[in-house]
Amino acid sequence: MTRFVSTRNIRFMIREVFDADSLTAHPYYDRHTPKMFDMVMDAAVKLATQLMYPVLTEMDRHPPVLENGQVKAHKAVKKIMTEFGQGGWISAGFPESHGGEQIPLIIRSAASFVFAAANYSASAYPELTAGAAELITSFGSRHLIDTFVPNMLAGRWQGTMALTGPQAGSSLSDITTTASRGNNGWFKIKGIKTFISAGDHDGAENVVHLMLARIENAPPGAKGISLFVVPQKRLDDKENLVSNDVTTAAVYHKLGGRGIPALELSMGEKDDCHGWLVGEEDKGLSHMFQMMNEARILVGLGACAIASAAYYAALDYAKKRPQGRPVTRKDPTAPQVPIIEHADVKRMLLFQRSVVEGGFSLILQCAKYADLMRVSVGGERERYQLLLDLLTPVAKTFPSEYGFLATSSAIQCFGGYGYCEDFPVEQYLRDIRIHPIHEGTTGIQGMDLLGRKLVMKNGKAGQLFLAELDHTIQAAQSFSGLGYAAAALSAARKQLEAVAGFLLQVAGQQKIEAYLSDATLFLEFFGLIVISWQWLIQGISAEKALAEKSSRKEVRFYRGKLFAMHYFFRYELPRTRGLSVRLMDGDYLTLDMDSEYLTDY
Amino acid sequence: MTRFVSTRNIRFMIREVFDADSLTAHPYYDRHTPKMFDMVMDAAVKLATQLMYPVLTEMDRHPPVLENGQVKAHKAVKKIMTEFGQGGWISAGFPESHGGEQIPLIIRSAASFVFAAANYSASAYPELTAGAAELITSFGSRHLIDTFVPNMLAGRWQGTMALTGPQAGSSLSDITTTASRGNNGWFKIKGIKTFISAGDHDGAENVVHLMLARIENAPPGAKGISLFVVPQKRLDDKENLVSNDVTTAAVYHKLGGRGIPALELSMGEKDDCHGWLVGEEDKGLSHMFQMMNEARILVGLGACAIASAAYYAALDYAKKRPQGRPVTRKDPTAPQVPIIEHADVKRMLLFQRSVVEGGFSLILQCAKYADLMRVSVGGERERYQLLLDLLTPVAKTFPSEYGFLATSSAIQCFGGYGYCEDFPVEQYLRDIRIHPIHEGTTGIQGMDLLGRKLVMKNGKAGQLFLAELDHTIQAAQSFSGLGYAAAALSAARKQLEAVAGFLLQVAGQQKIEAYLSDATLFLEFFGLIVISWQWLIQGISAEKALAEKSSRKEVRFYRGKLFAMHYFFRYELPRTRGLSVRLMDGDYLTLDMDSEYLTDY
Repeated sequence: MTRFVSTRNIRFMIREVFDADSLTAHPYYDRHTPKMFDMVMDAAVKLATQLMYPVLTEMDRHPPVLENGQVKAHKAVKKIMTEFGQGGWISAGFPESHGGEQIPLIIRSAASFVFAAANYSASAYPELTAGAAELITSFGSRHLIDTFVPNMLAGRWQGTMALTGPQAGSSLSDITTTASRGNNGWFKIKGIKTFISAGDHDGAENVVHLMLARIENAPPGAKGISLFVVPQKRLDDKENLVSNDVTTAAVYHKLGGRGIPALELSMGEKDDCHGWLVGEEDKGLSHMFQMMNEARILVGLGACAIASAAYYAALDYAKKRPQGRPVTRKDPTAPQVPIIEHADVKRMLLFQRSVVEGGFSLILQCAKYADLMRVSVGGERERYQLLLDLLTPVAKTFPSEYGFLATSSAIQCFGGYGYCEDFPVEQYLRDIRIHPIHEGTTGIQGMDLLGRKLVMKNGKAGQLFLAELDHTIQAAQSFSGLGYAAAALSAARKQLEAVAGFLLQVAGQQKIEAYLSDATLFLEFFGLIVISWQWLIQGISAEKALAEKSSRKEVRFYRGKLFAMHYFFRYELPRTRGLSVRLMDGDYLTLDMDSEYLTDY
Repeated sequence: MTRFVSTRNIRFMIREVFDADSLTAHPYYDRHTPKMFDMVMDAAVKLATQLMYPVLTEMDRHPPVLENGQVKAHKAVKKIMTEFGQGGWISAGFPESHGGEQIPLIIRSAASFVFAAANYSASAYPELTAGAAELITSFGSRHLIDTFVPNMLAGRWQGTMALTGPQAGSSLSDITTTASRGNNGWFKIKGIKTFISAGDHDGAENVVHLMLARIENAPPGAKGISLFVVPQKRLDDKENLVSNDVTTAAVYHKLGGRGIPALELSMGEKDDCHGWLVGEEDKGLSHMFQMMNEARILVGLGACAIASAAYYAALDYAKKRPQGRPVTRKDPTAPQVPIIEHADVKRMLLFQRSVVEGGFSLILQCAKYADLMRVSVGGERERYQLLLDLLTPVAKTFPSEYGFLATSSAIQCFGGYGYCEDFPVEQYLRDIRIHPIHEGTTGIQGMDLLGRKLVMKNGKAGQLFLAELDHTIQAAQSFSGLGYAAAALSAARKQLEAVAGFLLQVAGQQKIEAYLSDATLFLEFFGLIVISWQWLIQGISAEKALAEKSSRKEVRFYRGKLFAMHYFFRYELPRTRGLSVRLMDGDYLTLDMDSEYLTDY
């Protein structure tokens, strides 16, 4: 079997580290049992292996094309949408009241991870549909829900997020798509949307866009944006699907992610595009952000998953490919050794593994906070909410940025062969490069962390996070094998306080531009500490298990886990040293320098 | 005009920083004048702009194909080879005795940089030919030189390096291609070679492979490898070109560099492949390494050049693309500002610029050492040789590794558009990814630096390098504007001594595996210091010029240069902090961990 994830690691994470089984004690989740979680994961692996991984390369080599105004996707897409609909994968996380299974997000995330590792493009079709449907159920009227959601959850209708336009890019407050009031409860939509993933394809009977637009005479900027459902085809009086005047203007030709089309859409060319308001007028951005926050974590999850697939491809190759000899035994008549025996190759593999498993851990941590939020109230609920808010930019960015480096490192393990289409790693590099961009670039995530999350409620989220760190450090102190790591995390905690304190002082002097100027670097700095924390949490579970287990295979798993943890502490966490020097340096080069100095001719 | 290099910067580097004009005082270069150097550079820019850049995208989209046993390349290739041959670009660096122009390497390198920035794949055809011809002139017999070199320098015959085979990869001592002694001064060659760039194409009349093979009964390993000229077609008695039994077995499908084919070649399928020995029997590897060292610097140069093209594409976009508003003036009715006004975008552009111009500076520094070597003797010559040897792994690796990151950062400046084929940056990312691999991976460069270059002649090269640093630091102290940078480089010098001292102590205890285990990280650490040194050298020239010039345009250039220098010192050099912690940590995780612990299932 070709491996793109470690099912052993997933089991470790879900059960031993995050104890997902304990969720079943809450009434909302009590229809589930640990055994059912196992069955869900087994089914996910089977679906990924049999349906998605086999078409990974093909979907890349034969990307969707625009023919006679309709996008033709790979034929596997229809099969995947149908299978995900019928198998209950799109609806799994929805409440029973909407036809769902109330499966905890942590289980659903682990399944999403498996799907994305097998074939990220393919997995995005149903994921987008679930996200769009969730937005309708959260803010839409009963009528909207009944019209759209069942078809979406069944995998018959595709869902999308249609946010930005050509002149807006990341600046959503500048979108120009307009909505004019109609007479029958709908609006007339007019405008152009760019980069709409899965915005049109023949693998679904209809496409349902969750679209941002500006109602005529709305206030300027972010406060005048509303959210609409704009289907590609609408139902006429006789319940037939007829055109809703949404035209596919162009297909983007992309570096990667080629299995799913990104489109430019044009609404209202014949002045006949209907849209239905979702939620309140002018509150579109804040409604959309519910979906966006989940989408951001899903982007991080996807990056992690691609990096996972790249890691296992590299690991497999490194074990099989003989080349060179140990540095102290160069006898040319001796056989060559597998390249995994070279220290530098081991280092590269450990880097990849530490990024994949460290990032995945954070994704599941976020999912667990979300699950606990749902079943708690008051201060406890606020605590989970704040931690989730604080960690979201990291969960989006760390796997995207470091996952890109990890995937590049997987190519390096293959040498020249990694650069060729014979192995999937070159595709993984192309696929993962979008992750630091879509659903808010890394720069935007940094601004979100420093400009919003760190200062909201008087810095309460940061305080809660420090308490989480302390809790983990203390728990680690019972294990002598974790001494170095616990001490290193403790030192990093001090560094974090120093850097954040310095920056907040800058902000306190009203130097807001200076405070935010290196937000991207602060995000990297903070991310390294967050992932170290996640590694220490895993280390504690591994040490606990080692004290009890003794089968050779199990011991190998836990010891390997501890080596990966040590790798992260010894090789990656020290990057914070340079970053903290920069962040506390007090020089604001990028503000002092007029942009004309970059023009050198 | 589309810009892929800054001609102003090239002029600054050649003339103001490295004073190439002074070389004309030496008899070997005295036929040249500064004016002629200018003309050469102008001609290079013209050729690159008119002939090479226009086919950059086309050559990528229509890669060479194997049809009926012959590789068909883009039609521009023949034009480029002819133009480079007739224009004297292939022969420019050769001595007059071989029909060359004796142009200094520093000028030739600057021209190569321009060509590679315009279209790296296209530039590789003539560059490979020049390298192969140089190897024949260095070690081949008069007869070999007369037979092959004139046709190669004229651009009629393609030259290649045919080193490795399917079972050898980076481990050249394991190649299995054989050479059996014939009767007429040639050998019969048999074997398979992999990854041969430009190994066959219809843009040349013949292909001349400089090939490594093992003569029957040669000693095992590196000491039994000889170098041969193996042409695709050989001359028969009547001076007609006839088949030499070299078959193109396959074309690799690559992530990038698609304008030039990489091939698998099969020699002697009909037992009729002739090869001619170049230099001494069994000395093939050391002969080849003359070419290899130049080829490695050329790889660094190419990476720098691609990153340059990516940088100027990003800069151009950032100046034109309006999006968002300043963080302290968010009025949505005010117009959007060009993204170059955002601190994070400026930071990304400065990163790219600092890598491109810092790396290019090191390439020219190496070229200048090589030029001075040629015209000096005794201890002086040895000094240049040792410095060149020491810096070669850095000149190959820093631009390749950081250039990859810089090119990725160029994509980030474009946002989603950078991920699409509408702009060339996605191609640049694909193109540059081979550079950390070909002509010796980054891992191999690290081993070369630590295992060979740092310890040769009792560490003399390192001592000479420290003296160069001291010289630069002292010169910088006359300029108050360089105080921070000089002090930072001085501190980094101490760090370097501490880290190298620590590692050499490990080596002294015969812990060779431990000494070499993080060689890749030492190379990065050392590289950051080397590039900082090059930036300080540029800073000194900029400060000198600012004291004299006053035109607004000139002042803008030099101030911009100083901002880029400050950027490197403030943002990039601090990375050495984390690296030095790791390198002196005394824990050898990758040696202690058995590779089986990476198997987690």
